[in-house]
Amino acid sequence: MTLHPSLAAVRRGVRRSLADLDPGRTVLVACSGGADSLALLAATVVEGHRVGLRVVGATVDHGLQSGSAAHAVQVVDQMAGLGVDETVGARVQVDDAGIGPEAAARRARYAVLDEMARHFDAAAVLLGHTRDDQAETVLLGLARGSGGRSLAGMRRSFDVYRRPLLDVARADTVTACQVEGIRFWEDPHNRDPAYTRARVRHTVLPVLEEHLGPGVAATLARTADQLRSDMELLDDLAEAAHARLAGPDGTLPVAGLAAEPDAVRRRVLRLAALAAGAPAGELFHEHVLALDALVTDWHGQRWIDLPGHLRGRRDDGGVRVVRAEP
Amino acid sequence: MTLHPSLAAVRRGVRRSLADLDPGRTVLVACSGGADSLALLAATVVEGHRVGLRVVGATVDHGLQSGSAAHAVQVVDQMAGLGVDETVGARVQVDDAGIGPEAAARRARYAVLDEMARHFDAAAVLLGHTRDDQAETVLLGLARGSGGRSLAGMRRSFDVYRRPLLDVARADTVTACQVEGIRFWEDPHNRDPAYTRARVRHTVLPVLEEHLGPGVAATLARTADQLRSDMELLDDLAEAAHARLAGPDGTLPVAGLAAEPDAVRRRVLRLAALAAGAPAGELFHEHVLALDALVTDWHGQRWIDLPGHLRGRRDDGGVRVVRAEP
Repeated sequence: MTLHPSLAAVRRGVRRSLADLDPGRTVLVACSGGADSLALLAATVVEGHRVGLRVVGATVDHGLQSGSAAHAVQVVDQMAGLGVDETVGARVQVDDAGIGPEAAARRARYAVLDEMARHFDAAAVLLGHTRDDQAETVLLGLARGSGGRSLAGMRRSFDVYRRPLLDVARADTVTACQVEGIRFWEDPHNRDPAYTRARVRHTVLPVLEEHLGPGVAATLARTADQLRSDMELLDDLAEAAHARLAGPDGTLPVAGLAAEPDAVRRRVLRLAALAAGAPAGELFHEHVLALDALVTDWHGQRWIDLPGHLRGRRDDGGVRVVRAEP
Repeated sequence: MTLHPSLAAVRRGVRRSLADLDPGRTVLVACSGGADSLALLAATVVEGHRVGLRVVGATVDHGLQSGSAAHAVQVVDQMAGLGVDETVGARVQVDDAGIGPEAAARRARYAVLDEMARHFDAAAVLLGHTRDDQAETVLLGLARGSGGRSLAGMRRSFDVYRRPLLDVARADTVTACQVEGIRFWEDPHNRDPAYTRARVRHTVLPVLEEHLGPGVAATLARTADQLRSDMELLDDLAEAAHARLAGPDGTLPVAGLAAEPDAVRRRVLRLAALAAGAPAGELFHEHVLALDALVTDWHGQRWIDLPGHLRGRRDDGGVRVVRAEP
């Protein structure tokens, strides 16, 4: 009997992702009870056990919706029923702290997953993000307009985390659950138009599919893959140039900067602003271009203003980022 | 009396674009009779004459719509009325030649503009593309999914051509015409949903503006600017690496390839395929990744197929692209 293609796609993603792990190690699967993470969990049980891995199902209750505690209990039951070796559930306190509810929930979630990974000595923590999540991330980045960095989407892996389903369509995770008789939960937030991501999913992407041709989600995900390696190299080049050029007080010589290509020089100037304490979230491309004008279009500007009460100045053939005097 | 802000924006773009030209030289303005190119033309007459340039208005009749000859005559009259020093009009033969009607019209248009530029010994040929055209180009590139290259949009200048309005909103060119009492033409193709670009303009971009926030067009144009310099540097690095690595018969040593970062190595392999005669329009990222697997994931693949009846092979520690044997 051949496997249903959707189930095969999910299992293939998981199999590849686990290929380098030694038997006897533990893999944690982060599971919300949605189709993507339940399909991931079920496939990890099959593929992980095949190669001698211990599989732990983990769920995090953000306490943001009424009934979330009961939901978490139900997910734990469901994970146990799917054959994991152990389950773990935790409730987190989401503290908005001025970064917005979505970012705050994400931060709290990763903090507790980090802790669980340490507790179980996990070799990997698997996340259920699909190709569609990646496409949405690219579109949200497009709206921020911070260049290739914001279009490069989610990484396939970072620290202990891995995303085995980044090439798998969300629809395949839904079908995989249906084929295996797994009941899944639909997060009402995913349909709430108050959330930009929900609007991207249910309105923007369908319009793009209709007018730019089918397969736009796959195309966006592919673009993100290409840009990610591009941006990594450019960031590496800029870090090397910054280390080479910066004096002990952080001053960058104009002559050295001017000799760098635009793409590297602007990144070096961005690094200089960050090193001087500019908050990354407030440092926009316009700021970097204003700094760059001190190098390439200097006509006696005394200083340019930067976020974090900083200034970019040019004196004595050098550019530096300093505290604004009060 | 202060200038209307829209008119000021158009003039500022033109003034900056002309800043490096010597008095006495000739500037050609390509004019379709639309708001963008008429606003460009009117601004070039003012700003060009101010710095002693000769301004020639040029229009091209593609002969694709009924009445196009009469329209071209009318544009010539209108350009003369706006104070240009000379006008020129030409009719071109659009030969589809399998590249599609839009690409064919573009190719024919540039061929005749090249000829006009030579005839008038023009220092620059100005094109009326606006920030909105740039945003549309980025979105169309996004749908092609060929990475940063397709998102980098239109260049500010190439050869003798310049795009002074690439930072100016299309709406500003319309207002500038209205403020100056210039009647402009609306190309029915721009509203014809048979054209992907028209759908992007009238459906896709408005949906993005509504759901991702206003200013999406400006954001897309800014992203294109950043990506352009990024892609230029990566392409330069790849060309240098290709020149350094390729043997006399084009063979690339696996060890040398493997030492390059992903972003450079894949570009080098793409260059090798192009050098062997692969048609650029048919060489997709999947082909490059298949070539790359000969380096990074070789498990005895005998060859991989490439467009243009080519194959990528690995033998004797080298990768090369060769004709497929019949």
